[in-house]
Amino acid sequence: MTRGQFLGLLAMAPFARGASLGVNAERLRKRLEDLSRHGRPEGGAFAEGVSRVAYSDADVAGRALVMRWMRDAGLQPRIDAAGNILGRRAGADDSQAPILFGSHIDSVPNGGNFDGDLGVLSAIEVVQRLNETPLLTHRPLEVVVWCNEEGVAFNNGLYGSRAAAGLLEEGELDQVWNGVAKRDAVRKVGGEPARIAIARRAKGSFAAYIELHIEQGGTLDREGIPIGVVEGIVAIDQYSAEIQGFANHAGTTPMPDRQDALLAASKLTVAVNDIVRSAPGRQVGTVGHIEVSPNAPNVIPGSARMTIELRDLSSAKIAKLGAAIEERARSIATETKTAIEIRRVSHHDAATADPHLQTVIEDVCERLGLKSRRLPSGAGHDAQSMAHIGPMAMIFVPSVGGISHSPKELTKWEDCARGAEVLFETVRELAR
Amino acid sequence: MTRGQFLGLLAMAPFARGASLGVNAERLRKRLEDLSRHGRPEGGAFAEGVSRVAYSDADVAGRALVMRWMRDAGLQPRIDAAGNILGRRAGADDSQAPILFGSHIDSVPNGGNFDGDLGVLSAIEVVQRLNETPLLTHRPLEVVVWCNEEGVAFNNGLYGSRAAAGLLEEGELDQVWNGVAKRDAVRKVGGEPARIAIARRAKGSFAAYIELHIEQGGTLDREGIPIGVVEGIVAIDQYSAEIQGFANHAGTTPMPDRQDALLAASKLTVAVNDIVRSAPGRQVGTVGHIEVSPNAPNVIPGSARMTIELRDLSSAKIAKLGAAIEERARSIATETKTAIEIRRVSHHDAATADPHLQTVIEDVCERLGLKSRRLPSGAGHDAQSMAHIGPMAMIFVPSVGGISHSPKELTKWEDCARGAEVLFETVRELAR
Repeated sequence: MTRGQFLGLLAMAPFARGASLGVNAERLRKRLEDLSRHGRPEGGAFAEGVSRVAYSDADVAGRALVMRWMRDAGLQPRIDAAGNILGRRAGADDSQAPILFGSHIDSVPNGGNFDGDLGVLSAIEVVQRLNETPLLTHRPLEVVVWCNEEGVAFNNGLYGSRAAAGLLEEGELDQVWNGVAKRDAVRKVGGEPARIAIARRAKGSFAAYIELHIEQGGTLDREGIPIGVVEGIVAIDQYSAEIQGFANHAGTTPMPDRQDALLAASKLTVAVNDIVRSAPGRQVGTVGHIEVSPNAPNVIPGSARMTIELRDLSSAKIAKLGAAIEERARSIATETKTAIEIRRVSHHDAATADPHLQTVIEDVCERLGLKSRRLPSGAGHDAQSMAHIGPMAMIFVPSVGGISHSPKELTKWEDCARGAEVLFETVRELAR
Repeated sequence: MTRGQFLGLLAMAPFARGASLGVNAERLRKRLEDLSRHGRPEGGAFAEGVSRVAYSDADVAGRALVMRWMRDAGLQPRIDAAGNILGRRAGADDSQAPILFGSHIDSVPNGGNFDGDLGVLSAIEVVQRLNETPLLTHRPLEVVVWCNEEGVAFNNGLYGSRAAAGLLEEGELDQVWNGVAKRDAVRKVGGEPARIAIARRAKGSFAAYIELHIEQGGTLDREGIPIGVVEGIVAIDQYSAEIQGFANHAGTTPMPDRQDALLAASKLTVAVNDIVRSAPGRQVGTVGHIEVSPNAPNVIPGSARMTIELRDLSSAKIAKLGAAIEERARSIATETKTAIEIRRVSHHDAATADPHLQTVIEDVCERLGLKSRRLPSGAGHDAQSMAHIGPMAMIFVPSVGGISHSPKELTKWEDCARGAEVLFETVRELAR
């Protein structure tokens, strides 16, 4: 569509009605496109996605650009000890706790241009619009760009928001990934690992945390609803299964004598799917990673290691599914003459969105004439760290086809603008 | 056991009876131990196996040592254009076609010290014993050390014997593995890739090819039989299965919407096992190799690639099993909403051992008072290349527990000596 068509469409869009001051949808779009250049495949286009893994040169360049836009919006960006970028806008009563809002700009490898970026650039847009109006809110506002949300680097996500919520793990800064120590990576983005503790925020240090994000699932897109109001973020249990068989010659070992670790892993993968799907509800279960040894066509696999990940809003439900999987693993081990050891390697509690904040967002949508629905978030978000220290809520916009973590990730420009508009009105309402 | 006990045991062993001149079992053992140093884990012992991949420095050093022993046995080793080592001993009628015998000394990574080595060092021992006696055979003898039997390097085994049988594939010398071109690797072991064609042997260039080898399966060990007379080498069909699903977020994609490539691969792996085991007979089927992308715990696998290998003495039987697997793959693809493409990537015909040669070996065993049984070889061997250009037979000795391609690979010293003795008598009989 041409720029003219796009603006025309925006003019007709429901969010342009009523009392809203309106975000600058064109500026938001332009910034999403500009940011996408940092980490874009060489010679590629916006639609070819982005690889902006945390602490990479692309991430550093993207963060510099975002800080420039924060300054354009009248914010003085600062980098906290953990590497998060923060920018404060004073309120009429500056002694009040601020409304905190933002997201992240790091991506998975070959990821998309909306995951995280939309929330950050919309947050900056909200502040810039308020300055342009101009309009002073009662409470101060604080925009945040969380560091290393995806956790591709160091295999441990929500790093910046966990640092802020006091949820870092023992020795986490000593981790090494791709030959780089985490403390050096944190330094690279301007953090101060030796003083990481001062990045921690006290309970009550914000009145509300609001994050606009793409859904990453297909519910809103399928139902044609522009705004999702997140009820909570699912609990996640991750297990590792280690299977010990016996590597032997694929030609000379009769079938009944085999101890085939990949056969056992395959039966377990099928079992995970069967068990998760046999219970009613929206829970999901995934075997996403497998390693086989020696992994040669003519050798019976001697060992295998796989991950099992279970998610649901109810921790009790995924615990029960995990137990059923462990029980099935025991019979698979007997059947295949292998040893299977299953260990839960991590547990993330579910995080509930604040009921009052959910209502505020719903009211905003109604005022703007936008349909909304409540839904859980199957993905993890920095908002779940914030839930540990204050009330949080999330605004979702549709992902076309439910595709995410892929260059095919897409949220239509009008949906981006609608999401930013809902964020703008929600922040205004809460900071009023 | 002490050296004294070992020799005592040999003195009582049945092969020491009768008219045999006897091989020097102690010398054979010592050479097996000495050869094992080339490729042994640093600071390790004989029992810790060997990594002597073809064309490696360990392979080059092992070949030099073997050539020294060939000279000790009165042979003048030469390296042919393909890199095979050959040594000829004149016969009384030197115009006759020789008896060709030998094996290989390259190994898989973390392999054992008997696979190949036993056949090579026993062949040298046979010639050395004949010289020590001295005894002139009517026909000439030719000892061979085939190059790159295992095919770990360049993923294509029986290289040297295929070159000799005129079975090299188009462009095979242009292959690159670990950054090295095959022609350079062949040069490293003393071959002359530009003149590879002269390594080819004519039909009738040998009267018989005999290979002593460890069984690598558990049949002889389980039944307590010291000698196996190979009926033939199984046919092998190797398939690749490429599964295309769709990579998506493991948290936000509902179970019914998934196109999980690993789930499909797992169902197919279980199906291969079920189908192969459902038919009567000794056929085997293995999924030994799998690659999954993106292979991350929190991403639904978007694609997978796996190998399927089927073996039996009957090519028709494995073709039928392959067809059944392809049919099952179609229903798995539908069930999992993935696309599965199965291609047969290689077919090795079964190779039948010469019936007369089998009888000669059986008669030798009877004369030596050694029990023998006929059995197929589930593993591929250089003998199958030789079957294309002349009569071949193989002598098997027991593998403890049927373990091979592993540091745990073991053939008892007395079984090694028995095998060498049977080789000695068989060669004498055929060259008489």
